[in-house]
Amino acid sequence: MNAPLSFNQQLSLLDERIEKSWADILENSRLVKAIREGEVSRALYAIYMIETFHYTAHNARNQGLVGVRHADNPVYAKFCFEHAAQEVGHEKMALHDVMSLGLKHEVFDIPSALPETEVLIAYLYWISFTGNPLQRLGYSYWAENAYQFITPLINRLSETLELKPAQLTFFVAHSDIDIEHFNEIKLMLQRTCKRQDDWDAVATVMETSLRLTGNMLEAVYEQYEAWQNGLAPRYDFLHALDSQ
Amino acid sequence: MNAPLSFNQQLSLLDERIEKSWADILENSRLVKAIREGEVSRALYAIYMIETFHYTAHNARNQGLVGVRHADNPVYAKFCFEHAAQEVGHEKMALHDVMSLGLKHEVFDIPSALPETEVLIAYLYWISFTGNPLQRLGYSYWAENAYQFITPLINRLSETLELKPAQLTFFVAHSDIDIEHFNEIKLMLQRTCKRQDDWDAVATVMETSLRLTGNMLEAVYEQYEAWQNGLAPRYDFLHALDSQ
Amino acid sequence: MNAPLSFNQQLSLLDERIEKSWADILENSRLVKAIREGEVSRALYAIYMIETFHYTAHNARNQGLVGVRHADNPVYAKFCFEHAAQEVGHEKMALHDVMSLGLKHEVFDIPSALPETEVLIAYLYWISFTGNPLQRLGYSYWAENAYQFITPLINRLSETLELKPAQLTFFVAHSDIDIEHFNEIKLMLQRTCKRQDDWDAVATVMETSLRLTGNMLEAVYEQYEAWQNGLAPRYDFLHALDSQ
Amino acid sequence: MNAPLSFNQQLSLLDERIEKSWADILENSRLVKAIREGEVSRALYAIYMIETFHYTAHNARNQGLVGVRHADNPVYAKFCFEHAAQEVGHEKMALHDVMSLGLKHEVFDIPSALPETEVLIAYLYWISFTGNPLQRLGYSYWAENAYQFITPLINRLSETLELKPAQLTFFVAHSDIDIEHFNEIKLMLQRTCKRQDDWDAVATVMETSLRLTGNMLEAVYEQYEAWQNGLAPRYDFLHALDSQ
Repeated sequence: MNAPLSFNQQLSLLDERIEKSWADILENSRLVKAIREGEVSRALYAIYMIETFHYTAHNARNQGLVGVRHADNPVYAKFCFEHAAQEVGHEKMALHDVMSLGLKHEVFDIPSALPETEVLIAYLYWISFTGNPLQRLGYSYWAENAYQFITPLINRLSETLELKPAQLTFFVAHSDIDIEHFNEIKLMLQRTCKRQDDWDAVATVMETSLRLTGNMLEAVYEQYEAWQNGLAPRYDFLHALDSQ
Repeated sequence: MNAPLSFNQQLSLLDERIEKSWADILENSRLVKAIREGEVSRALYAIYMIETFHYTAHNARNQGLVGVRHADNPVYAKFCFEHAAQEVGHEKMALHDVMSLGLKHEVFDIPSALPETEVLIAYLYWISFTGNPLQRLGYSYWAENAYQFITPLINRLSETLELKPAQLTFFVAHSDIDIEHFNEIKLMLQRTCKRQDDWDAVATVMETSLRLTGNMLEAVYEQYEAWQNGLAPRYDFLHALDSQ
Repeated sequence: MNAPLSFNQQLSLLDERIEKSWADILENSRLVKAIREGEVSRALYAIYMIETFHYTAHNARNQGLVGVRHADNPVYAKFCFEHAAQEVGHEKMALHDVMSLGLKHEVFDIPSALPETEVLIAYLYWISFTGNPLQRLGYSYWAENAYQFITPLINRLSETLELKPAQLTFFVAHSDIDIEHFNEIKLMLQRTCKRQDDWDAVATVMETSLRLTGNMLEAVYEQYEAWQNGLAPRYDFLHALDSQ
Repeated sequence: MNAPLSFNQQLSLLDERIEKSWADILENSRLVKAIREGEVSRALYAIYMIETFHYTAHNARNQGLVGVRHADNPVYAKFCFEHAAQEVGHEKMALHDVMSLGLKHEVFDIPSALPETEVLIAYLYWISFTGNPLQRLGYSYWAENAYQFITPLINRLSETLELKPAQLTFFVAHSDIDIEHFNEIKLMLQRTCKRQDDWDAVATVMETSLRLTGNMLEAVYEQYEAWQNGLAPRYDFLHALDSQ
């Protein structure tokens, strides 16, 4: 029987696993490659932001659900509801940014979420509704700390597409908010995770939700290829961006 | 076709119906009568506070559920989650107040909720989970504004039982909080209720949840009578209060 | 510590409590009195059957929910799903019977459920979703065995209103089905209730759901009075039955 | 605007997409390869059947949930509950088959579901709880018709591991049941799918749930490799099978 790990040791283990998962995504994602090589187009970025819109619309809801389920731990339940309150409506920023690419005068229905995005959403509700109540912190732990990985990509993309800050409200808002959130997440892990089982549940949800996000990124690129080849009629309206 | 009612007219109609419902409770409740006539005992108060503990433990949860279900209206969803965050853990005050009556050294399980309390809890989840998303505001509208009706009773009870403020944490805390909450509820009604259907749903939930609360009060008194006659073994531990 | 009660003793205790609850309803219900005294009208019967339509529409659903929640006991879960399958669509019989009273050529929306009916529905979902998984058997126990109490009333009502069997499909169908169902309920109680806690939970749900049904009957009569006095515009369409 | 497709054309399109998805799994799955090449071991088969146990335990539940949600279509709701009743307890067959491999005298906890299996389970609840009520038929459509793809593999595995029919209860039972079920699924599709949207939802759920099942198969093999390399302590008890 080993001595239990300290809080900082547990965080280091989480960080290690996150870095490995991110490295895997950054190496293999064709979307990431397109951004890095300056080959991203407005249509590709729009397809990505539409999926961002979809899963973000559920984040406050599944976060709140954890509080509904587990109100017996007041510290954690209060955190869940407060965090949910802060996340409400963020999907509207994603939608705003899509529209600002040059779609304001187009008439179209927002395409429904891709299956890979549905799978991510489904998983986040599932781990919020069942199992270890603390495990959703694993999702927050990587999502609120993603900006070190994402910011260079957003900067590159923004250069390529010549986007103004007012067209990047989703990312600008989140990179500000999330530093504070990330500290709250760490504090909450420290106050609530008591047993190795808790840390294991957090780690599993962290890795799995990050991997499912990676799958979503890949699906975005597949749709983009299909669109380029005229095989994705759901994105026909994006041709309005061709000449932008 | 009549002209739509103004916001203030709608509030007046709600207030009228609340006053009528409260009058009905205050006239007929044997618990209220016992308090007013200075005949309330610690055991009776304890039985009441145990039920208060039970339904209060669900208030943050069913309030949060409204946000989970209806996150498409950001103003309202944010309110639901913030309000839920504020309600978390309040049942612990009710429990503290029960224990402070003289039960700290007793060993007992808290009796489970009475059927009438279960019915109230069930109804609050139901109207939070289905139907018009705004209708739970009807519950908040009377509950956050109940102190004009309840404060005289609590004062009287407190005199009779010689309770100190530290033994009335639940009511003291709520009478402070609720004034602010009540203004928020009114503001939220003003911002969200657009159609007569919304007001009707709010009014129905308001009246029904107040009536079910009245039924709970009556059930508390029935249990007290049964306990006095030795027919409620679940409350045996309350005999420790006899000599207080 | 007493010896545990036998299965037949437990059933006798349930039967005793049911009879007492039914006696209370039969004595005090103004709807029952109107039927017994031959003073029931088509409008009164219609108001009652509309509420029957509403709660019946949820019976298969809340019965199925018990199976969804508690699939770890295969015998009981199978029973729940099979029973749910048998209950599907029965509300359509209630609606058919309402229409057959003379409303087929009227244009109207079915009035929404009364608050007392909502409370019954809410409670049945609540006890299906939480607590002792076996407790919903308490509802089935009285509901599938209600025909000894109800049949004389239906016969009397049918005479007064000169209804043909084809206008009583809901009751005719259920009185046939329910004898078989009732035997299944008893068998299921025998196979699943192991501890006194199980029997207590069954008894509480039995009594509470029967009492809430009694409240619904009283609310039906109140609406009928309001309709007679021109105070229930939701039932205006029932005046088409006046001359029947 | 094209003419709507006939029922048989819709089925053909589903079949085409299934065959393509299955071909992808059969070509790439290392578990399938191991079976085909006679290199499957009892431990590998056990790891697979433990995951089968896990997701199967939820099939009756998520099938029943569709009926709970969508009881307004009696034909479909009845089917959902009846189908759920038939699926109850099937996970126990999977567990029996695992134990029969030579684990009856071992003391161990069944390892919890792998993340990939959790993702499959999560998705099946999600598509049962939200979206087009008919879409879960897409899961049934491939799952009840999988035996043409699976039977050759089970036969091969059974030879390699020298399993008796009594050790293959899960697959033997399902291959019998599922032919009948598959005809019911087709009949239900015919009776319920009215619009192209319905067929699209069915097809998406069909492909996605089959793909997630493929991911689960791959995860099983990864765990097996880890176990061989001493890196999967959760499967330590499987070493009891080494000498079988």
